[in-house]
Order: sequence, then structure tokens, then C-alpha cells
Amino acid sequence: MSNALTLDIPAGVPWIDFTREFDAPVEAVFNAHRDPELVRQWLGPRGYEMVVERWDFTSGGGYRYTHRDGDDVYGFHGTFHTVRDNEMAIQTFEFEGAPDEVAIEFMRFVDLGDGRCRLEGRSVGRTVEGRDMMVESGMEQGMAQGYERLDELLTQPASAAASASASAGMQG
Amino acid sequence: MSNALTLDIPAGVPWIDFTREFDAPVEAVFNAHRDPELVRQWLGPRGYEMVVERWDFTSGGGYRYTHRDGDDVYGFHGTFHTVRDNEMAIQTFEFEGAPDEVAIEFMRFVDLGDGRCRLEGRSVGRTVEGRDMMVESGMEQGMAQGYERLDELLTQPASAAASASASAGMQG
Repeated sequence: MSNALTLDIPAGVPWIDFTREFDAPVEAVFNAHRDPELVRQWLGPRGYEMVVERWDFTSGGGYRYTHRDGDDVYGFHGTFHTVRDNEMAIQTFEFEGAPDEVAIEFMRFVDLGDGRCRLEGRSVGRTVEGRDMMVESGMEQGMAQGYERLDELLTQPASAAASASASAGMQG
Repeated sequence: MSNALTLDIPAGVPWIDFTREFDAPVEAVFNAHRDPELVRQWLGPRGYEMVVERWDFTSGGGYRYTHRDGDDVYGFHGTFHTVRDNEMAIQTFEFEGAPDEVAIEFMRFVDLGDGRCRLEGRSVGRTVEGRDMMVESGMEQGMAQGYERLDELLTQPASAAASASASAGMQG
């Protein structure tokens, strides 16, 4: 069973709000955003092959990755303005097919207790038209499938939670 | 004589548009945004002491600086998502007095010919309220004074243009 992705796309403003709950601890969900080997396994729609060229999920860091769908390859890159462990990420986002239409994304990781959490996000584009194009490109389906894949990853026997402990141990 | 700063602050959206012309070549105005020793001499209102802690004006780079006004110190930081020489900068912007209210700024450097250029900018906040707070904080006066100081810097005998040539030489 998966939780629902909720999108709010108000008219006349350039942002999209979304929320998604997870039946997993906030540390595991955060770690699945930090560790590029985990990110690669869930980010984006089903059936795409993701290659992570750079993923430095720290304040001032950045990323670039590609999604391959058959012969089509889509590139994405951005910077991480703020990353606070298990709490917050603020990053830029550019789909290289629409150069310079950069969005800024705010993600809050909220601990709901009882081993559950909620992701609360806002993506703000440069223009209302750019935001609308992103919506029309199938963004909602891609996000929904990505978070379903994240659910599956978090419940695998060799799970993200175990990897989270390992990472915490290395950094501790 | 200074050129006017033009601001457009439409109701109901989280952005501010601005334009400002300069009686100086686009290379000199761009370089005064790239070289931290020059930035320090013009960015912000008159009478503030600026300390640049970091200024890496390249794609994927970042910055932090403080403005001191008597006993008050204001910190600012962000990342540079895109920097294209003499053409474009896209960056994040955070006033540390309003944590996590990060804006994304788009600046286009337009060559007008005859040794003149125009800066065209858009700053997009997370919320309309955050944008309005920025406007009410005296942003327009600070920007206008900063660009007047930049005019003065560009017409100094040991000018930014000379520094631009030196930098261009170093980069080959």
C-alpha cells in the first residue's frame, strides 16, 4: 500500500505545492535523498535508467543526472542551497531541455512519530507559463511513480534504513 | 549622471522585475559582478561596510558576505546555478535575518552596442508575502544606491574595465 501524492497547483502563481507521507522514519526518507546510490533507485518515473554524474547533497553542493528512456536522454542539474539533516532541503532545478527555466524547490522532512514522516514541498518557477509547462510534461505521474519506488526501496530487506545507519556511523 | 533603476512589482505574484542601463561595456559591468574586490566596492546601499567571505561567481559556485551598518551586521549567502560570461547569472539569495526565505534571481547582461549595456533582472521569492517584505525593507533604495556606486566605480581612472582586461588575459 502506498500513500497518496497530493499536488496543489494554484492559478496565477508560479509554484506547485505537494505533500507525500511515508510509512518510514524521517531519517530513512532523508537518507534516500542524500545517498546517490539510493537516489538512483527511486527518483523519477518507472522504466527510466538514471545515471548520477554528481550528487553532493550538502549546503552549497550540487548535482547532475540523466534519465534514459530508450534512445532519449534527459539531463537535469542544480545546486543545493540548504541541506539540514532530516529536516530541510532547498535546491535549484533545471531540466536541460528547457535551459535557464530554473526552479527553486523547498522540501521539508516532517517527523510524524511512530516511524512515519511527511515530505512537504514547494517548487517555484520563473514564470507561471514555465510552471504550467512542467505540469503538462507529466510531472505528477513521474513524482507519484518515484515516491512509490521509494516506498518499495524503503521496505526492501537490505533497506535504506540500514544504509542510513551505515552512513551515520561513517560520519559519526 | 546616472541611469534610472526601473522596478516592476506586480500584485499577486512572488517576483520583482528590474532593469538598469549602464554607460559602460557589458564586459566591464559583468566583471564588476564577478570580481569580489570590485563587488565589495559597489554592492548595497551607501555607508555600509561590505566583507566578502566567499565569492565564486561560476556555475555551481557560491557566495557569502556581510554588510555592516554601525553595530548591525547583516549576512547574505547563496549559490550560483548558472554564470555565462557577459550574458547571464542565475543565483539563489538568502538574507540570513529571514532564514529559509530563499529567492532565485535571474540576471541578463544585454550588450546595447556603443559601449553601453542593460541589466535585466527577476527575483522570485518563495511567497508573495516574502517578496512584499523584501520590497518594504528598502530594497529599491539599496539597489539604486548600489548601481550608482557601480557607475562611479566604472568611471574611475583605474577602472573596472582595466581589471576586466587583466582577468580576461589571465583566463586566456
